[in-house]
Parts: sequence; structure tokens; C-alpha cells
Amino acid sequence: MQSHFAYAQLFDFTVAVFLAIGCPETDARLAAQVLLSADLRGIDSHGIARLSGYVRLYEAGRINPRPAFEILHETPSTATLDADAALGLVSAPFAMELAIKKAKACGSGWVTVQNSNHFGIAGYHAMLAQQQDMIGIAMTNASALVAPTFANERLLGTNPIAVAVPAGNEAPFVADLATTTAANGKLEILQRKGTDAPAGWIQDKEGNPTNNAHALKSGGALLPLGSDVEHGSHKGYALGSIVDILSGVLSGANYGPWVPPFPAYVPMPAQQPGKGIGHFFGAMRIDAFQPAAQFKSQMDQWLMRFRNATPVAGKEKVLVPGDPERSMEAERMQNGIPLLTVVLEDLSTLGEKFGIKL
Amino acid sequence: MQSHFAYAQLFDFTVAVFLAIGCPETDARLAAQVLLSADLRGIDSHGIARLSGYVRLYEAGRINPRPAFEILHETPSTATLDADAALGLVSAPFAMELAIKKAKACGSGWVTVQNSNHFGIAGYHAMLAQQQDMIGIAMTNASALVAPTFANERLLGTNPIAVAVPAGNEAPFVADLATTTAANGKLEILQRKGTDAPAGWIQDKEGNPTNNAHALKSGGALLPLGSDVEHGSHKGYALGSIVDILSGVLSGANYGPWVPPFPAYVPMPAQQPGKGIGHFFGAMRIDAFQPAAQFKSQMDQWLMRFRNATPVAGKEKVLVPGDPERSMEAERMQNGIPLLTVVLEDLSTLGEKFGIKL
Repeated sequence: MQSHFAYAQLFDFTVAVFLAIGCPETDARLAAQVLLSADLRGIDSHGIARLSGYVRLYEAGRINPRPAFEILHETPSTATLDADAALGLVSAPFAMELAIKKAKACGSGWVTVQNSNHFGIAGYHAMLAQQQDMIGIAMTNASALVAPTFANERLLGTNPIAVAVPAGNEAPFVADLATTTAANGKLEILQRKGTDAPAGWIQDKEGNPTNNAHALKSGGALLPLGSDVEHGSHKGYALGSIVDILSGVLSGANYGPWVPPFPAYVPMPAQQPGKGIGHFFGAMRIDAFQPAAQFKSQMDQWLMRFRNATPVAGKEKVLVPGDPERSMEAERMQNGIPLLTVVLEDLSTLGEKFGIKL
Repeated sequence: MQSHFAYAQLFDFTVAVFLAIGCPETDARLAAQVLLSADLRGIDSHGIARLSGYVRLYEAGRINPRPAFEILHETPSTATLDADAALGLVSAPFAMELAIKKAKACGSGWVTVQNSNHFGIAGYHAMLAQQQDMIGIAMTNASALVAPTFANERLLGTNPIAVAVPAGNEAPFVADLATTTAANGKLEILQRKGTDAPAGWIQDKEGNPTNNAHALKSGGALLPLGSDVEHGSHKGYALGSIVDILSGVLSGANYGPWVPPFPAYVPMPAQQPGKGIGHFFGAMRIDAFQPAAQFKSQMDQWLMRFRNATPVAGKEKVLVPGDPERSMEAERMQNGIPLLTVVLEDLSTLGEKFGIKL
């Protein structure tokens, strides 16, 4: 069951909620924009469905609505930022803007962030650089749900990597991928439907492969991209680890099994080695490598070649990373964003608490 | 059938071959060291087994043994290098040293390379930075063997990504992964044995999944990491594309289906948009983000936590990326490097041509 809502309506509601927990106007609007970019792009698990979760983190004292960002360490091309327990929805664009500023000055900028919280979809932040003729990179660690290859423990989050590349006349390349075989959001859909999960998505609490979509909630784990060692799960595990090291260890945030959980009711891991969760951002100016117009013309050729590739039987066309999300955004801007009844009820309860109508 | 050879013996032979095709002494020794690091680390497909292939590229006029490197474009933290058709075994360490130099000056260094050739294993180059208290990144594109998700064409190479991270007392983290489900080398082993390939490694020339290990040679394609869309092959496709764009498009090298093939007898693709194959290197100084000693102590904790993770039943322990290759290197330094009879015969023929004895 779902109803459709205009983007503007959800935006106003979300801004009002962030204002209600004490965010300044500019931050509330920015946070709403970042959060809802997930709904627009069809990554419903990371959008407004999480709004009440962010509020609960605020209520638990884990989100600071009026953070004072501090640069702990920097060089001409790098910086480490203490986000002061901000919404990641606010600290991440700030950090990416800092990376962009450094790239303008010396070709590239690289910013690692500690003491932050969830930042919505990685792709949003990578695209900030892409819109300024730079290659944008964004990643974040997250609480541990994923078992490394051969491990019967959850040690990594779904740890996404996003890379956005500008083009000329063609729509840009925007990759945004969790380093797991399947996103947790996809598993939750199967749980609601009561259907099995495909082989290779999860293992049970004994570490055995399973099709039971509920196994993750009963002590199992998501599997790294590749599923099993015969299909390269050690590569997905390595990629998730790289994200964890650049976002968590390099910044002074928590890492591995110590990353704070998103649900406020889940207890914090004991003996945490760092502060909050961590992100990592990069921006490389195209014209730090070659004239931008020349690059864009080659990138157009790359994009056209892949978009016009011969499809396998039964498929209409070959897509470039970012194409499905771009179509979805156009469609939802026009026809509205669908919300499941369960999400709508959650938002209504949230609205009532603050006297805000959806 | 295989025989074992001491590292020093294979090194002297390889140096002699590179000298014989006209490389200066320093370059010949460097190229031999890079090439044989693959054999030491157990990535036999990328080591001395390819030496005669490099010679054939030289004979075809595609490798210049006395290149003049030229920096085409640079900023304090970035550069684009024209490798002048060098052995990638020589241009890649040069480019990484340039990235390291830039990182020393301004925190990080990023170098993209055009007009190059195969560079051996990506991990070797990433480790050059790691040995200097930097995070090292290396990638390269390669000739197209991989079909994007939904495509019935080969448009990407196996496009590896390597990331090496320094540690304190623990052995470092060294990830080096092709962005495909299985490396081509593993497929070749199955072809020799005459056994089937696991599901999810390849598709046939109609674009259908197949277990036939010979399907790649008869018009099929390797599959991106993830194997099929239900298991995230669009993510492996995205990762391979990122490598292609950073190495090929950003440098002015060839990209996608236009990357030159390694076998000298395979005709060059028509209407190539760039020069040679492309690489991309990054170096980030740890102390551009936080004091190096502090980072290394946290990194040790990360490594210990993962190495001591509870294994699933039947597995002795959980490995960290780089662990299997490090063990292999120690073992082969002591007991020698095994060469298959077919490789040994190929090397003997090569040696006879130049009057060099193995």
C-alpha cells in the first residue's frame, strides 16, 4: 500500500522536522535536500523513511543540531574534519565543499571526517564535485552487518562508494554502490513480503549460506559483493575494508565492529576506539589533468559507446551507472514520491509530536 | 608439470632479456623486479609467464625500450604523464614516485598515465607508497574481455584496483583485485585441466551464462564482480568503469573496447581515441590527516581485530587482504618459484633467441 506525495510537500515537512529538533534554517533545508535526494533517486531505504530514526538519534543525544565543525589537521590538498556529532546530511556537504575548495587551489582535495552520523546517499555528495567539473568521490562506513570472507562475525558496514564524473552533452556517470551483494533495504523488502532471499546474499548465525531473509535479524550477516570466495567475495570484503579504513581509521572515527548503530535503541559497542562514524571525500579538478572540454568530449564518447552497446537477448539496452536513478528522479519529480503506508504512519506520528502536518 | 627456480636465477634471466631488447640497465632491473613480484606473490598469470609476450610487443614496435617520459599537464597535487610507449613495468613506478613526491609537497599526489603498456601487478605500485607511510592506490585499464551488465559485448578489461595501507607492528593491508568475478588466469587453468568453470564467471557469445571454460575464447566474455544483476554485477561493472575512466579517459589513453590487446598478434582496434593503455596512481601521506604513529596504532588494532575474527566452521582463520600473497612470497623466496613446463619451454625458446641461458 502506498500514496504519492509531491517533492515540495515532503521537503517542507522534512525541513520543519529538522527545525523542530533545533537545526538552523540553512542546515535544516540542506539536510532535507540531501535526505530526499534518496527518495527522488529511488533509494527509498535511505530517504524520508529514515527521518524518525534521525530524530531518535537526536533524542538519544547522539546528534548535535548546532555543530561547530573543526579542522583538526590539514595540508594544501587534505584535511581531517571533526563534525561535532552533526547530522551527516550537513557535515558531508560541508566536507565535500572543503575538498572542492582545496581542489580549486591545488588540483585535488581529500577530506576525511570523524564524529559524524549517517549522511544519506553517497551519490549526492559525489555529484557536488561533478557539478563543478571535478570527479567526485564519497564514501562512509556504517555499523557492522557484513561478515568478511570466512568470518562468522559482522565486522563491516555496507560501506558504499560513490564516484561521479562530468560529461559534455551526455548525462554524467554516477556510480553509487554498497560493497555488499545486496543492500539491506532489498532484504527488508523480502522480509515484508515473506519471500526467500536469493542464494549468496546472507549467511545465518552459524555462518552457513541461507535463503532465509530473516537470518540477518537472527544473528546472521550480509555477504560482501561476490557472495562467496569462488565468486570473489574476498574482493567485496577488500572494498568494504578500504572504505572503512579511509572513512574510519584515517579520520579518527570508529571502524569495523565499533561503528555506532543507526537505530538509537541498539546499545553502543563497548570500548569504541574513535568518535562517531566516519566519511571520506575526494574532488579532482578535470583541468588539473587535461583541458576540461577535451575530457568531456572523450567522456561523451565513452558514455555513448556503453549506452549503445549491444544488449543480451531480452534486455532493451545497456545502462551506465546513474541512468536508472536519473530516470527515477525525473519521474518522481513529475508524479510524486510513493510512500509505503507504514512509512506514512511513522511520519504522521512524528509530525504529531512536533505539531507539523504532512 | 612444474620445476622450481630460485628468485635470483629468474631475476638475472629476466634482466638479461630486457637488456637484450634495448632497455637501459636501471630500467631492465626495475622491470624484472616488478614483473617477478607477481611470481613471488603467487599471481603467476602476471609474472614471468608473460615475459615473451612483452618481447613480442617490442618486436611489433609497440614497446619503446628507451622512452622519454613527458609531463603533459600538472598542478601541485596532480599530473598527466605521457609514457612514450614504455614498458608499464617501468612507467608505473616512475608515475607512482611522482605521486609520492607531490604527496610530500602538498599532502597527496595523483598521476594519470597515457601511452603506456601492461604494468604487472597493481599491488606492487600501491606498495611503493605504503612503504613511505602513505596510502597507495594503483589501477590500470586493459583490453576488453568483460561484458557490462546486460551487454553482449566485451567493453572493459579486468581493470584491477590496488590499495595499500601502512601499519605499525602488524603486516600491512594490501588489496589488489580485478573488478571481475574471476581473473582470466584462473579461467586459463580450468581450460588446461579441461574442467568446467563455476556458474557466474563467464557468458557465451550469445550472452547466456555458461560453465564452458572455453567460452571466452569463442566469443564470450568474463563477467563483472557480482556475476549477475541479482548478485550485484552492476557494481562490478561500475568499478571496472571507474578504473577505465581514471586510467584511460582522464589520461588521454585508450579506453573501453579501444584498449590495445596484450597479445601482439591480435589486431589493434580501429579508430582508437587515445594513446596506448592507461594507469592511475594515488599517494596520500598519512600525516596529512593525523600523526602517523597514532594512525598506525589504530591500523594495528583494525588488522588484529579482523585477523582474529571468529572463522566459520571448516576455516582456520580470517585473512586480511594481502595476507595470502605475503605468505606465498616468503615461501617462494625460500623454496623457489614453480614454473609450469609450458612456461619453461617458452622461456627456453626466448633465451635461445637472445643467447641467454636459464
